[in-house]
Amino acid sequence: MSEQAVADLGLIGLAVMGQNLILNAADHGFTVCAYNRTHTVVDDFLNGPAKGKSIVGAHSIAELVAKLKRPRKIMLLIKAGKPVDYVINDLVPFLEKGDIIIDGGNSHYPDSNRRYEELTKKGILFVGSGVSGGEEGARYGPSLMPGGSEEAWPHIKPIFQSISAKADGEPCCDWVGPAGSGHYVKMVHNGIEYGDMQVICEAYDIMKRVGHFTDKEISDVFAKWDKGVLDSFLVEITTNILKKNDTDGRPIVEKILDSAGQKGTGKWTAINALDLGMPVTLIGEAVFARCLSAIKDERVLASKTLPGPAIPEGVVKDRQQFIDDLEQALYASKIISYAQGFMLIREAARTYGWKLNNPSIALMWRGGCIIRSVFLGEITKAYRENPDLQNLLLNKFFSDAVTKAQSGWRKTLALATTYGIPTPTFSTALAFYDGYRSERLPANLLQAQRDYFGAHTFKVLPEEASESLPLGKNIHVNWTGHGGNVSSTSYDA
Amino acid sequence: MSEQAVADLGLIGLAVMGQNLILNAADHGFTVCAYNRTHTVVDDFLNGPAKGKSIVGAHSIAELVAKLKRPRKIMLLIKAGKPVDYVINDLVPFLEKGDIIIDGGNSHYPDSNRRYEELTKKGILFVGSGVSGGEEGARYGPSLMPGGSEEAWPHIKPIFQSISAKADGEPCCDWVGPAGSGHYVKMVHNGIEYGDMQVICEAYDIMKRVGHFTDKEISDVFAKWDKGVLDSFLVEITTNILKKNDTDGRPIVEKILDSAGQKGTGKWTAINALDLGMPVTLIGEAVFARCLSAIKDERVLASKTLPGPAIPEGVVKDRQQFIDDLEQALYASKIISYAQGFMLIREAARTYGWKLNNPSIALMWRGGCIIRSVFLGEITKAYRENPDLQNLLLNKFFSDAVTKAQSGWRKTLALATTYGIPTPTFSTALAFYDGYRSERLPANLLQAQRDYFGAHTFKVLPEEASESLPLGKNIHVNWTGHGGNVSSTSYDA
Repeated sequence: MSEQAVADLGLIGLAVMGQNLILNAADHGFTVCAYNRTHTVVDDFLNGPAKGKSIVGAHSIAELVAKLKRPRKIMLLIKAGKPVDYVINDLVPFLEKGDIIIDGGNSHYPDSNRRYEELTKKGILFVGSGVSGGEEGARYGPSLMPGGSEEAWPHIKPIFQSISAKADGEPCCDWVGPAGSGHYVKMVHNGIEYGDMQVICEAYDIMKRVGHFTDKEISDVFAKWDKGVLDSFLVEITTNILKKNDTDGRPIVEKILDSAGQKGTGKWTAINALDLGMPVTLIGEAVFARCLSAIKDERVLASKTLPGPAIPEGVVKDRQQFIDDLEQALYASKIISYAQGFMLIREAARTYGWKLNNPSIALMWRGGCIIRSVFLGEITKAYRENPDLQNLLLNKFFSDAVTKAQSGWRKTLALATTYGIPTPTFSTALAFYDGYRSERLPANLLQAQRDYFGAHTFKVLPEEASESLPLGKNIHVNWTGHGGNVSSTSYDA
Repeated sequence: MSEQAVADLGLIGLAVMGQNLILNAADHGFTVCAYNRTHTVVDDFLNGPAKGKSIVGAHSIAELVAKLKRPRKIMLLIKAGKPVDYVINDLVPFLEKGDIIIDGGNSHYPDSNRRYEELTKKGILFVGSGVSGGEEGARYGPSLMPGGSEEAWPHIKPIFQSISAKADGEPCCDWVGPAGSGHYVKMVHNGIEYGDMQVICEAYDIMKRVGHFTDKEISDVFAKWDKGVLDSFLVEITTNILKKNDTDGRPIVEKILDSAGQKGTGKWTAINALDLGMPVTLIGEAVFARCLSAIKDERVLASKTLPGPAIPEGVVKDRQQFIDDLEQALYASKIISYAQGFMLIREAARTYGWKLNNPSIALMWRGGCIIRSVFLGEITKAYRENPDLQNLLLNKFFSDAVTKAQSGWRKTLALATTYGIPTPTFSTALAFYDGYRSERLPANLLQAQRDYFGAHTFKVLPEEASESLPLGKNIHVNWTGHGGNVSSTSYDA
């Protein structure tokens, strides 16, 4: 090995995330070689924040590679999409079999699947790693979700588990699974984040519009909730946001345009749920809620012509009860959302043939990332008790929690429904819960309709099987008495 | 022109839909040439149902093409996907510029976009046409939604408008727009169909589980609704289904397994809505409701451990009021669903650069297809009054209808919420309505959160703009007082 080969990790891409991750690794005793296409960025970093630390730089891919210990570990923190392919193509000619490329960007998991396949053929170990926690997380401990070539894991584990966040003493980083599963799990994380943000917004809206609370009062409620079952990063920052006033003494949040942006990862999760046929309704509604917020001009127009119920002052008689009910609504909705998220992960594992590590996934989200919460500790515990748990709602802790939350949840929704406050995620969570615990759903009628108009056939309930309705067979009934014994052809429904 | 060239239309694919469409065209005085890859199918058809009618057959593509008048019009009614490409490839060498290929199958619109591009380059006119109405519709009058090469329209219009269904004397067929827009509109039709079926199922479930109605009683309610604003094919068949008894005198529908299938077109619509950023929540929930129904084994398990409220007999005191409220809930939910569907079509037109004909789209669905209803006559009227109507909910007829429906809708949902009956589509419709008519949504808090953890920036409300919060600019606030003036990098949310 050359004298030059001093670095434990190479890092390409020196935007804030990349710089912070390097500083984090250096703090933990690793030597990192920094590279960026624009050389001045490397020099500025070396002469600035990196000064005096175990950080070296490179002005070319060749130089970067030469400075790395074998097997080389090179992490990319660059814009997702084509740039990742370009940089990988530039890197490969300089690498040897067994070297490791880690994509730490926000790549879509099908791209990571493809890169895993391509690089595996070339003998290069590919890792697609979710990185969450923003700039603060990158600097002082992110949540890291690596997946891909499992052979790479022993080599990167010491670095990844050192620099990651810790929760209850354990690193918020473990091996996720094969191929693009690391980025897949990160995608679901982001979808869940969309849901967590939306449920908080609905609670805020109900306190504001039904309870006529001030932002200061709402902040105090969130502060109190942050000490209980809802203890989480997002509730904490909501508390802070609501008490941040502008120079005129009025809350800044009330001056912000109510039109939410999105960058697609929540959408990807909802689309994947539809593709896999898993009812991840809460994330779906959270994405659509952002879409509805975005057509602000049309809403302003509609608000002038479409009526709703009046909400007189004093609708809320018992403020404490109102707040307690609302807390239960938020908590129950959150449980449903995570149950749905893990249903999706379970189905993805089955569909894509991935062996995934459920308790570790919950633990990786426990700290460091945007959705970090005490709650995720309970999910970790549930999956440690039973790694093959079919559904979070079938675990005693969570079924007890939902049972307890139910009355307040229903009361809150009846109130919102009556007074016209939109609660898309609270409502879909309850509809899911009531559907999930229904032995019989009205889909029997739906199947009859499909058989009636399109001869799509149906199956019989086991307990109702008979000679004319045989068990397990596709049955068609001549509903109208005419039309004969047709079968469905090109018409689909 | 050869002596042989006798046929006005060639039809490939002699499954039930194809046979019925040929018989329909023959009834209207057109000569049709029938072709199927398996020759015996052609012969059986000619010697069977086609006997004595203006129908000829062909045993090869060459023979088929030779028997067609110019410009040749050849319609495919075969399985969507690769088979369509195979048949088109087989056809093209025999065709001349200006000949017309019509795909009447359930193709996904991106495939039709592609085929339109490819065939246009070869001088062949391509039409992708939605066909709805099942076998009955194909035989006696389907809804036809043709789009693609507009030059083809004058040639196929006489045939298409003759064989299509008629509503209030007008053909349920008109030119939709360019490229794959015909199949696109058919896809949205199918998505709306998913929603229509699900709202009916929820009404049935509430009558059954909260009102403890018998199927006969529920059938009578639907029969009555079928004479009012809900007058539609799906309500009509629901009436018939609920009164169809098995040999033991019990309703067949109650013996059907409550696990619904799907063939993807509803899913495509929901995915497209997510891609275009349009909140088509009702179709989304309808698709997810089918997904939830499909995991029956898990629901049976969950039903034994997850509690819900008891529903004592006699919860419904005033049966007529209960039914009237429910009718309003169903009607209002349906209005929301169609408003969302037309929002999606409008956005698709904008995104894909299609000029679409909204009044005609509603008219095409007015008769012949599965979602045919009196209601669609009102939509046609609304778009004829104002073809650029921004939203159905902003039309007076529909805003009046929703205003009137509101109280019953809210009461029904409060009841379902309290007694634990899942109403995913009723609930999402109300959440959408209350969100759509909200001048302010809580997305301001969501934008603050995104700016807090990821420096994603926000915009200010126009009326709150100031020197420190300038109008139209992307604003970042240093919420925590530390962390400096960062901007978002690779972290997405």
